[in-house]
Amino acid sequence: MSDLKLVARQHKEHNSVIQVGQETIGGKELCLIAGPCAVESEKQLFEIAKGVSELGIKFMRGGAYKPRTSPYAFQGLKKEGLKMLKRASDECGVKIVTEVLDTSLIEEVYPYADILQVGSRNAKNYQFLKELGKVDKPILLKRGMSSTINEWLLAAEYILLGGNENVILCERGIRTFDTSVRNTMDIAAIPLAKELSHLPVIADPSQGTGKRSLVTPMSLASIAAGADGLMIEVHNEPEEALSDGFQSMYLDSMKGMVSVLREQAKLSGRTLDLEKIRKEAV
Amino acid sequence: MSDLKLVARQHKEHNSVIQVGQETIGGKELCLIAGPCAVESEKQLFEIAKGVSELGIKFMRGGAYKPRTSPYAFQGLKKEGLKMLKRASDECGVKIVTEVLDTSLIEEVYPYADILQVGSRNAKNYQFLKELGKVDKPILLKRGMSSTINEWLLAAEYILLGGNENVILCERGIRTFDTSVRNTMDIAAIPLAKELSHLPVIADPSQGTGKRSLVTPMSLASIAAGADGLMIEVHNEPEEALSDGFQSMYLDSMKGMVSVLREQAKLSGRTLDLEKIRKEAV
Amino acid sequence: MSDLKLVARQHKEHNSVIQVGQETIGGKELCLIAGPCAVESEKQLFEIAKGVSELGIKFMRGGAYKPRTSPYAFQGLKKEGLKMLKRASDECGVKIVTEVLDTSLIEEVYPYADILQVGSRNAKNYQFLKELGKVDKPILLKRGMSSTINEWLLAAEYILLGGNENVILCERGIRTFDTSVRNTMDIAAIPLAKELSHLPVIADPSQGTGKRSLVTPMSLASIAAGADGLMIEVHNEPEEALSDGFQSMYLDSMKGMVSVLREQAKLSGRTLDLEKIRKEAV
Amino acid sequence: MSDLKLVARQHKEHNSVIQVGQETIGGKELCLIAGPCAVESEKQLFEIAKGVSELGIKFMRGGAYKPRTSPYAFQGLKKEGLKMLKRASDECGVKIVTEVLDTSLIEEVYPYADILQVGSRNAKNYQFLKELGKVDKPILLKRGMSSTINEWLLAAEYILLGGNENVILCERGIRTFDTSVRNTMDIAAIPLAKELSHLPVIADPSQGTGKRSLVTPMSLASIAAGADGLMIEVHNEPEEALSDGFQSMYLDSMKGMVSVLREQAKLSGRTLDLEKIRKEAV
Repeated sequence: MSDLKLVARQHKEHNSVIQVGQETIGGKELCLIAGPCAVESEKQLFEIAKGVSELGIKFMRGGAYKPRTSPYAFQGLKKEGLKMLKRASDECGVKIVTEVLDTSLIEEVYPYADILQVGSRNAKNYQFLKELGKVDKPILLKRGMSSTINEWLLAAEYILLGGNENVILCERGIRTFDTSVRNTMDIAAIPLAKELSHLPVIADPSQGTGKRSLVTPMSLASIAAGADGLMIEVHNEPEEALSDGFQSMYLDSMKGMVSVLREQAKLSGRTLDLEKIRKEAV
Repeated sequence: MSDLKLVARQHKEHNSVIQVGQETIGGKELCLIAGPCAVESEKQLFEIAKGVSELGIKFMRGGAYKPRTSPYAFQGLKKEGLKMLKRASDECGVKIVTEVLDTSLIEEVYPYADILQVGSRNAKNYQFLKELGKVDKPILLKRGMSSTINEWLLAAEYILLGGNENVILCERGIRTFDTSVRNTMDIAAIPLAKELSHLPVIADPSQGTGKRSLVTPMSLASIAAGADGLMIEVHNEPEEALSDGFQSMYLDSMKGMVSVLREQAKLSGRTLDLEKIRKEAV
Repeated sequence: MSDLKLVARQHKEHNSVIQVGQETIGGKELCLIAGPCAVESEKQLFEIAKGVSELGIKFMRGGAYKPRTSPYAFQGLKKEGLKMLKRASDECGVKIVTEVLDTSLIEEVYPYADILQVGSRNAKNYQFLKELGKVDKPILLKRGMSSTINEWLLAAEYILLGGNENVILCERGIRTFDTSVRNTMDIAAIPLAKELSHLPVIADPSQGTGKRSLVTPMSLASIAAGADGLMIEVHNEPEEALSDGFQSMYLDSMKGMVSVLREQAKLSGRTLDLEKIRKEAV
Repeated sequence: MSDLKLVARQHKEHNSVIQVGQETIGGKELCLIAGPCAVESEKQLFEIAKGVSELGIKFMRGGAYKPRTSPYAFQGLKKEGLKMLKRASDECGVKIVTEVLDTSLIEEVYPYADILQVGSRNAKNYQFLKELGKVDKPILLKRGMSSTINEWLLAAEYILLGGNENVILCERGIRTFDTSVRNTMDIAAIPLAKELSHLPVIADPSQGTGKRSLVTPMSLASIAAGADGLMIEVHNEPEEALSDGFQSMYLDSMKGMVSVLREQAKLSGRTLDLEKIRKEAV
């Protein structure tokens, strides 16, 4: 009935572990992805990249193409932003997670990204998902803001069916009647998705709540519920951010946060070792 | 605050009237678009096209590329379906409304369609909307299943800002807690969108309810609330339909429905003349 | 499965017609209920009652006990308000529809009301619904703001099972993600409830939209979709209203509205004769 | 704007700690409330009470009056059920949390309960909340299934304003479009409510998810997010339960669960000592 086949728990003996260079997602080590909502400038990005890599965090997020509700809002630095991401990646050793907005942009984004992100607004863009099935890099698939869990997993099924098995699911909050917070983070979706599928599931408490003070408690809750990792917005100057500053962590507070997360990881049977970043021979 | 500019009621003195060949949408004459959910075969399509055109209905819908929740569901006849639509259009004189799934398919669909449809799953695919702003054919923009009215209008703003002023808004139901019907049709969105914007607004009671018995009452309600037209799924054999048969009207019952709609149109200050289709010199 | 028995369409050959003195609800004549959100003063109430009765409208709404989200908001005139309603009813010949908040208030409200209203916040207060089953006056049962159609009908089932067959269902909008309007009016619930049940179904476009400019189009849409009547908030001075003034019609504009509704009623196979109010021998 | 006064964080220097006999809720020790959805029989209740008290759990839940969607579903043992709860309480030393359905039942339930529960269906029954303000026992206030966080806190404000300061907030899931689980548990509501208010906040992962396999992960997530306690449905024979068996924990598995929760509590700066129950002099 639900048409889950390749993504189904029954299809595979073990949890899927996604290899990204020398790093893995879905194994014992918790995956942390930190970075700004949008790439805004060389200065901003390198400060954040440096801060993030000094903590041993392996993955940096950052949007070069931004899907904005209004056409008059900042749309991202586009190609320039992608180049900055690449330079930051080379210099600081962080792997890049960045959003692809559309089939037509896959080719452009591909060389600059280690993981291609599908945003929640594209979670039912099936033509795009089919194209991503042909890509040989991992896909971070956000849940649509009005996708059921089954619809989210079927979106992943599209990618796997296309030949790309490296899909990371990401719970980022759903749209409900309650506007106290930006989205309602559906923490139960984490253990439920892991019950139904062998794919790794991470959580995005920044998008999921839209409120800085809730990011740490919701990160802890996500790990406690079984998440394989977290995607967290961090900014060197949140007050000056061109988008979503109110939900971004201060770079300075990340160190403290990481040590709190490490304790939770340990309790939840995971590790958060964050060894010093090893520069890979490129 | 809402960033509505080009689409805003204040931007234009009169309601926008979209010209499609010799037909118009948004004027006094109500616009009817009828046809199958998906193009399934030559026989099916031509029977429907013939039935529809005999009633004087000027626009036929029909999906050649279908966005399906499951990758294992019927995905449409694609290029073959587009060709059938074109032949039906030529033979029966109906104008074609068909969905484009993605930026990458605009070029393929363009020659076969009179109006390009953006489905609700693409209602926040901003890269795609930008591309549609460069197209010189009208766009039928469905409301996203979790789009607020402001978000829906801002999606249209993207298209107008790109240079294409010919946008038809289409309310097709939103996603709510109530699963008694497939979607919750937001009839109030019709007068509200018309209050806020000069663009024509039509309604899709087939998608909006997912239940055949509700299509006529919801069509009447839409016109009574001020809709500029209706998009209605009709099938020669609903029980055999490859998708959405349960919400499709029987071809045989369309005639009766049209005369009921005509009376409502008249009461609501509109016409539904449905004169004999004039073959245009192509 | 759905446990609908006494309220089910199958249970009864004909539509239920509720008798309220010499008036009926659910028959050919459309039922109009108009009046203020809350009873605020003798002057306000009598002006409205006079205006309403002069139009031939038979039922007046008015809250004496108000369920308010904040304990610091105006809670209604309570007993004093009930007495004013009774005097207005006696003087102007209108029948009174007023809300009962709780089992403990049934006895107090009973003598002053012709129809007891159950608000949407009480739509799942089953103990209260059981008590209302023992009352020998009609119950106007609003749909809960998060009640499915089945849950709404089962709430009515509680009342019928208790022995009171005189239930009028009232669609008043549900709570969804879209905050463009106060509630999302679920017009499809009207024909669907009438398909499933023999009980009369009316609509409340004032609560349902929370916006004056939408009240007339949504009233028309409700009738077009098959509603048996309308409940409309009207105020002599909406700008001064102690609650919900922004969604109240001006008393002055009711006359014009009524003649528009009458035309729609006629088209929808109903009447809206609004003969001069006959004073009944009490 | 939000009208939060007595419940507001600003109103009080410290977190409220509710005293229930010799036990407390809202202090360092985490509060556990376990028991069946409904009281079904003496045998069932005493087995559960014994099991629960042997684990050192101080509070037992159990419904004697059940608010059921259908009038044909089991409505609870009522007065008989209350008496059984009292006997179980006396014999096993557990404190009783049980739901009051209505103002008219406060007096009946009062002598049998240590904490009076307000169910989610009554979360906006303001007349009832006012009456509970006059009661001298603690109130466990469930969040309404469509209550915003502000509405939930304002419901508590009603009770405090009436004179009863002993309110425990309980997050139990909200109603959203996703029907994969019974409700969408809004974990972010826990830290947010604690940010806005000094009242204790507990979570109900049984109602919140409706799925046994999710109860432990969501319990952990709730504690990690800062909850002051948990309410968990447990049954001696879940398969035979008259209501909600599919979401009830097996009594046998509670011991293991408790030790997992204890570790999480410790990490989250709380304790879960569960010392042997002390029989109080009654």
